[in-house]
Amino acid sequence: MTIFPGRLHYQETYRNWAQIFKIMSVLWLVLAMFMTLPWLVLLLEGDPDAAAFGLSIVIVVGATLLAWLLTRGVSLELRPWQMFVLTASSWVSITGFASLPLILGAPQLSITNAVFESVSAITTTGSTVMVGIEHLSDGLKLWRGLMQWMGGIGIIVMGIAILPFLKVGGMRLFHTESSDWSDKVMPRTGGIAKATLSIYVALTLLAMICYWLGGMRPLDAIVHAMSSLSTGGFANSDASFGAYAEKPWLLWMASAFMLSGALPFVLYIRFIRTSRSALWKDQQVRGLLKLLLAAILILSAWRVLQGDHWFVSLTHVTFNVISVVTTTGYASDDYTLWGSLPVVAFFYLTFVGGCSGSTSGGMKIFRFQIAMLMLRNQLRYLIHANGVFTTRYNQQPVTSDISRSVVAFSFFFFITIAALALGLSALGLDLVTALSGAATAVANVGPGLGDTIGPAGNFTSLPDAAKWLLCIGMLMGRLEILTVVVLMTPMFWRR
Amino acid sequence: MTIFPGRLHYQETYRNWAQIFKIMSVLWLVLAMFMTLPWLVLLLEGDPDAAAFGLSIVIVVGATLLAWLLTRGVSLELRPWQMFVLTASSWVSITGFASLPLILGAPQLSITNAVFESVSAITTTGSTVMVGIEHLSDGLKLWRGLMQWMGGIGIIVMGIAILPFLKVGGMRLFHTESSDWSDKVMPRTGGIAKATLSIYVALTLLAMICYWLGGMRPLDAIVHAMSSLSTGGFANSDASFGAYAEKPWLLWMASAFMLSGALPFVLYIRFIRTSRSALWKDQQVRGLLKLLLAAILILSAWRVLQGDHWFVSLTHVTFNVISVVTTTGYASDDYTLWGSLPVVAFFYLTFVGGCSGSTSGGMKIFRFQIAMLMLRNQLRYLIHANGVFTTRYNQQPVTSDISRSVVAFSFFFFITIAALALGLSALGLDLVTALSGAATAVANVGPGLGDTIGPAGNFTSLPDAAKWLLCIGMLMGRLEILTVVVLMTPMFWRR
Repeated sequence: MTIFPGRLHYQETYRNWAQIFKIMSVLWLVLAMFMTLPWLVLLLEGDPDAAAFGLSIVIVVGATLLAWLLTRGVSLELRPWQMFVLTASSWVSITGFASLPLILGAPQLSITNAVFESVSAITTTGSTVMVGIEHLSDGLKLWRGLMQWMGGIGIIVMGIAILPFLKVGGMRLFHTESSDWSDKVMPRTGGIAKATLSIYVALTLLAMICYWLGGMRPLDAIVHAMSSLSTGGFANSDASFGAYAEKPWLLWMASAFMLSGALPFVLYIRFIRTSRSALWKDQQVRGLLKLLLAAILILSAWRVLQGDHWFVSLTHVTFNVISVVTTTGYASDDYTLWGSLPVVAFFYLTFVGGCSGSTSGGMKIFRFQIAMLMLRNQLRYLIHANGVFTTRYNQQPVTSDISRSVVAFSFFFFITIAALALGLSALGLDLVTALSGAATAVANVGPGLGDTIGPAGNFTSLPDAAKWLLCIGMLMGRLEILTVVVLMTPMFWRR
Repeated sequence: MTIFPGRLHYQETYRNWAQIFKIMSVLWLVLAMFMTLPWLVLLLEGDPDAAAFGLSIVIVVGATLLAWLLTRGVSLELRPWQMFVLTASSWVSITGFASLPLILGAPQLSITNAVFESVSAITTTGSTVMVGIEHLSDGLKLWRGLMQWMGGIGIIVMGIAILPFLKVGGMRLFHTESSDWSDKVMPRTGGIAKATLSIYVALTLLAMICYWLGGMRPLDAIVHAMSSLSTGGFANSDASFGAYAEKPWLLWMASAFMLSGALPFVLYIRFIRTSRSALWKDQQVRGLLKLLLAAILILSAWRVLQGDHWFVSLTHVTFNVISVVTTTGYASDDYTLWGSLPVVAFFYLTFVGGCSGSTSGGMKIFRFQIAMLMLRNQLRYLIHANGVFTTRYNQQPVTSDISRSVVAFSFFFFITIAALALGLSALGLDLVTALSGAATAVANVGPGLGDTIGPAGNFTSLPDAAKWLLCIGMLMGRLEILTVVVLMTPMFWRR
């Protein structure tokens, strides 16, 4: 008997949101734990900036405790619509909290700049508004690296555990695959997540050691290892990786680690536990490697034809192509000065992205491959004029469900970039800055093109409103667009 | 009993190609007939350039007679694969023959420039390599207008009679519609084509009279009428329609005639014969008008906010927006100087195009509308998590066949532009020129962006190789991309 329907409805709404907040607050606590690292470093160094981190920790822990207090006794079972809200609001709240030390501490950034920096960090984009990065405190350098590293593992876990469940962007293709596999080898998604985390930690440690042996100072090795594996791209210098432009071995090692961050992490698990050929047999990995090879060969040839030394060309082309395609966004050189073909090529490469299930952003290789399969089918249909052809990707049939998801993702991806660029142009940004800025934000790459935000530039001189637009773009890109678009429809809230 | 299989195969190949040539030669004869008009004008004016047209006519008629001689007794029934070859080779051969007077006559253009000009004309693109157009002979001005006018009717007839049959780009949506209708009202496609031609002629005559009454010299009225209705965009001045920038009534009349060229011509027939509301009830027409209204309002507001007079702003914004969206490509002003938002907006508008079944190029409004319906469905599917939803467009169900065609077209459209821009950049064109040049060619618009090929620029200074690439782009765009892509696949020739 529903005596107080109004009251029941209120209780239901309260419970729905309480469930979301309860899970989110666990993530806030993780964030606070990460904050203790730079805090300890600054305390040990006797840097007064430690106070900023201390205060930030107090605020985040306080928010967590408040959330727990308000959501006691609430169950944790979520329905799909709550997953959408949880995913988006987790990323928004975490980037908000993560910006606190930048506002409260030494750099005294404005709220806009601080939020831009933390959104750029945690979405592993790597665009920066900070100038004189060399002179930041060790704690802040570490914090910038840690934010990217957290964001990197966050997106892998989200890609394994949440996105396939939401049917967003055709990632079910991998859901089916990994759950088939988990039925046999590992019983729970939690197990995969744990194994992934171990591999992520191990690869990061390996990168730290390699970078350190390669001649980086320990802190630089730590930060660059974190921003390589997360394909984030924050560096400890205004010149980005240009600081190591004369050390080819560092560029080659960084290329390898960026690439390793852009491969599907479940394949590493399979590589270790069951099949040594798991990585090389995967259609997505092969597609990525072929694309990289083609881009590197063409652009190296272009540079050699312009009269540059072959090894220098090959080194810098490889580094910067891998940096952009993996959506890391380091730059070892201002590649926009290499000529007209490289500029257009890098503009295109901004969209591509690495593999699904990695830390990489962008469209992702598999979507291009699925699109190619669809187009080949369509041509076959025009020529032979009969029926629909089934295609397979990594031995999985490409169902119409997956095709439709991939198409919807592609369209929304371009619509988002186009809308964002239009907004940026209304704020006075020129065509190249607006288009490349929107693309680099939504694809979570880092540098754009043009004098302002190119690989040798900085986002600090953009108007505040443009920075907020780019923040929205970075978050939408990181959340595979549709997770956010769904939240913007009246249909979702009427549901 | 197949005694001489080799000989039979040879005969079959001969017959297949002879059929194609036989039909093509009819079109050549039509071309020669059109050439007699400028020839007569030049003869009457005693201009020695008449000889160039005379010689061109002799060559084209000679080729026609040769084709007839070689293909006597060959039947005219074509199979689908022959339609693909016929369509592409007709356009290529006609643009080739049409360039003859420009090479043989007074302008003495190089083969590259002449072919670029005729391809641009006949595909109704409207990019020009000619400088000092004011000083061309009357015959040449007329020829430039006639080429566009021919191209305009050519594409409408192709859209009614050939493309839906080839299942290219989702135009079956209109095939079903028009054949349903023709069953009742008109028995043959030939009837529709004839009615369309009458309407095209009538609207062109109306435009001539209006332009003449509006103050244009008779020849200018004739040429601009032809390039308005064909949404071609050739003008009789280096300043394009800027020559009439101070005559708002001419700009408004031209806006109306460009728009009338971008509406589906079958709807005019229905408007006249059966239903007065045919035009206003059509979903494609409504979509086009809404888009135009939105773009015009936003850009006019932008200009007024910059301090411009409201009527001047409204006039020029309306003219140039309609010019670009209908893919005409006249410019009354250098709109790239209006600021950052207009530049990005005009870049986007370059892709759109008018209605299917008109003289307009671009993606065409209906494909955007179908894509929007698909995206709305996908969002509904993500939220409600059940089944596929059927949608209707103009009361027709949007089958998966049509959705797939529209998606394939959209992808190939962007891939073609991207590949073309990459090629242009390899020839040294900067990002903005390469991207906007590729887009304006494939969408058959006319002007690009940037200093070289912008609305105040000219294509003449581009390298020859770039002009040939753009010719391929213009032809591919005009033939709805897939008609040409199919011919490039080994699958087609193995068939």
